[in-house]
Amino acid sequence: MIKKIDHIGIAVEDLDSSIATFKDLLGLELVETEEVPDQKVKIAKFKVGDVDIELLQATSEESSIAKYIAKKGQGIHHIAYEVDGILKTISELEGKGARMIDKVPREGAGGKKIAFIHPKSTSNILTELCED
Amino acid sequence: MIKKIDHIGIAVEDLDSSIATFKDLLGLELVETEEVPDQKVKIAKFKVGDVDIELLQATSEESSIAKYIAKKGQGIHHIAYEVDGILKTISELEGKGARMIDKVPREGAGGKKIAFIHPKSTSNILTELCED
Repeated sequence: MIKKIDHIGIAVEDLDSSIATFKDLLGLELVETEEVPDQKVKIAKFKVGDVDIELLQATSEESSIAKYIAKKGQGIHHIAYEVDGILKTISELEGKGARMIDKVPREGAGGKKIAFIHPKSTSNILTELCED
Repeated sequence: MIKKIDHIGIAVEDLDSSIATFKDLLGLELVETEEVPDQKVKIAKFKVGDVDIELLQATSEESSIAKYIAKKGQGIHHIAYEVDGILKTISELEGKGARMIDKVPREGAGGKKIAFIHPKSTSNILTELCED
């Protein structure tokens, strides 16, 4: 069950330049930067109220972020929802006919359990579920 | 000054079909639907914690939503931040060199004062400021 929006993931070409935009221009609070080798990305996390904005820069051309930018340019890449009971939520979604990219949760940034729903099932919006 | 994320705007081809996705599949709470003739869109607003998700369907080919979908397909169209003092915020952003689409706030959905920052200034992310 979805509790709230956990974060909005934004694909950027140059992390430092976009950090400057979100920090200096918009005045948002930079919380941390992190590299997630499993997803071949560097992340800068900003806190805005109780939602995070995660800027994602690819560290390899094989990264899904690099492929996204090559196809669509920089932009909002996904919405992540915090859920209560990720296993049950996946099972419920599959029961309703949703196509899961991850049928079993894997470890994401910050050690959370995460699973992606395929955009085909969600109006072309890549959708992440996560649980602390 | 940015206080929180007010809403995430998502461009969809068919509002009814996407309402079903967000309501029945994801289980989000549909708050209202509204037509905004000025922006040539129909909107369905969902509440997720203290952030809204706004699904936007064009009501005319002249709508920026129609043009967005023609170019990029359905997807996350913009992020809107709630600000304290929209006039002062616009002036501060311009002082920092940001390019505003709206130098003067106009009326948006729900009677809010809104102004868009040009994506050229914000890592290609169309960014809206709004104030109640």
